[in-house]
Amino acid sequence: MFEMPSFVQILDFIGTFAFAISGIRLASAKSFDWFGAYVVGLATAIGGGTIRDLLLDVTPAWMQDPMYLLCTASAMLFVILFRQILIHLNNTFFLFDTIGLALFTVVGATKSIDLGYSFWVAIIMGSITGAAGGVLRDVFINEIPLIFRKEIYAMACVIGGIAYWLCSLMGMEAYLAQIICGVTVFVVRIIAVKYEVTLPILKGEPE
Amino acid sequence: MFEMPSFVQILDFIGTFAFAISGIRLASAKSFDWFGAYVVGLATAIGGGTIRDLLLDVTPAWMQDPMYLLCTASAMLFVILFRQILIHLNNTFFLFDTIGLALFTVVGATKSIDLGYSFWVAIIMGSITGAAGGVLRDVFINEIPLIFRKEIYAMACVIGGIAYWLCSLMGMEAYLAQIICGVTVFVVRIIAVKYEVTLPILKGEPE
Amino acid sequence: MFEMPSFVQILDFIGTFAFAISGIRLASAKSFDWFGAYVVGLATAIGGGTIRDLLLDVTPAWMQDPMYLLCTASAMLFVILFRQILIHLNNTFFLFDTIGLALFTVVGATKSIDLGYSFWVAIIMGSITGAAGGVLRDVFINEIPLIFRKEIYAMACVIGGIAYWLCSLMGMEAYLAQIICGVTVFVVRIIAVKYEVTLPILKGEPE
Repeated sequence: MFEMPSFVQILDFIGTFAFAISGIRLASAKSFDWFGAYVVGLATAIGGGTIRDLLLDVTPAWMQDPMYLLCTASAMLFVILFRQILIHLNNTFFLFDTIGLALFTVVGATKSIDLGYSFWVAIIMGSITGAAGGVLRDVFINEIPLIFRKEIYAMACVIGGIAYWLCSLMGMEAYLAQIICGVTVFVVRIIAVKYEVTLPILKGEPE
Repeated sequence: MFEMPSFVQILDFIGTFAFAISGIRLASAKSFDWFGAYVVGLATAIGGGTIRDLLLDVTPAWMQDPMYLLCTASAMLFVILFRQILIHLNNTFFLFDTIGLALFTVVGATKSIDLGYSFWVAIIMGSITGAAGGVLRDVFINEIPLIFRKEIYAMACVIGGIAYWLCSLMGMEAYLAQIICGVTVFVVRIIAVKYEVTLPILKGEPE
Repeated sequence: MFEMPSFVQILDFIGTFAFAISGIRLASAKSFDWFGAYVVGLATAIGGGTIRDLLLDVTPAWMQDPMYLLCTASAMLFVILFRQILIHLNNTFFLFDTIGLALFTVVGATKSIDLGYSFWVAIIMGSITGAAGGVLRDVFINEIPLIFRKEIYAMACVIGGIAYWLCSLMGMEAYLAQIICGVTVFVVRIIAVKYEVTLPILKGEPE
């Protein structure tokens, strides 16, 4: 029997779709073939969650639900069909991507807490869930991972995780703390990009 | 007591040997030292199976049987001794490599099914077993993974996995379905290379 | 209640600190931002142990003790504050790094033996613990891993592991075998660097 997807599942779908699109677009810029582009899209979408689940020693989510593969396939189809108009949708994808980042952070942190880990582990797991897929993507296309050099990205996950922690310390209910965590990630990322807030570059040693 | 290796073990040895050779040869083209070349050869040979076993949460096969290390060592010795004639053996290695690809796909898919996973997971695990070692190799030598850009390679694993599934759906016995899976991978790869069948390149966005 | 750290914990701290410094310095040479440099430092310090623990199917050490994160943070602070004088400390860091390599090898090998694995697995796990963090670091900064091309590095771990094995075969007590293993790694690495001992380069095939 077909069940209606929950609100979180819909957000999860949007995040997966946006992450897959980002991988597929970068792969297409490097002239990958369709298969390669699909794999890079998939790695971007599920890579963070997979690394998290390996560390937490649980079965990766995508091995239990074909939704992630199908979602990446629809992202692939979307890029093939609407290549011409994709560039006009940059703002839309930025929004989707940020929703994905926020949601993945909440999912990753919550999963760790539910398994009994400390909050500092949960913050890292939230950040890995949100940001490690992009690192994998950049390794596959043979570039220095973007998040190491530019923009507040994974830092937004860390800040959102800390907000989650603080809410929890104050005895707030779980679902409320999760919403605040997600909104924090979202807002931090939006503000950082809008006002071009960046972290300082670590200068190399003098010659 | 020494036991005679089974037919599958001999095929496994041939596949491991061929995969290790491919890693060692590419490492030598980048002037790796002996140790580095050995590690790249090993990663090519066992990388796919190791990633699969981490995802399936079982102990990697090479941690239970030193055969894989010894096989890579003999591949290393082979490259050092017969460097001059290796280029004349390209067709032989292509054959071995394709046998390895076919066998690794069957092993990976069967292992997943035996652990109770759905067939779509098994198809992915078969493809990871066959193709992820080559991705790891290319990351180590700092190249964009070959399978993302050229030739039908991992796609042959996917097609073989689908053949396995169809056979299974038709109620075929396991060993027969496995043979058909392996032969399919082998034939698809041979045909793809012989007739230069490639997947379409995903074009980047217009400037 | 605060407990005094044991001798091994102090060595572990030193090794982690030195490994983190090496990652952070290389990241700074590539103009990573603070966050990126911290992540690369962390990956260098805990990457080897994490890969080992995933293979051994146990929870990674850093998920059970925040020491590794704090230690990397202090390494980060150190690099930011004392950037100017770091280049004069090359010999000191080489020493720390070698202590770390020796200790990580002993820890990795011992952990595997305690879990009931054969000694050849333990030797590999010791080498992964010591050297895989550096491979991860080099993949992140998009360079061919240094240990594949230059110097006796991971080979020192292998030789130390073999020494461990021989001591164990002779019925030596565990703590003594561990000390001999660590000292062997340390001495082999120091001698190799001092006398510029290198492994032969694997020559590519003739054109």
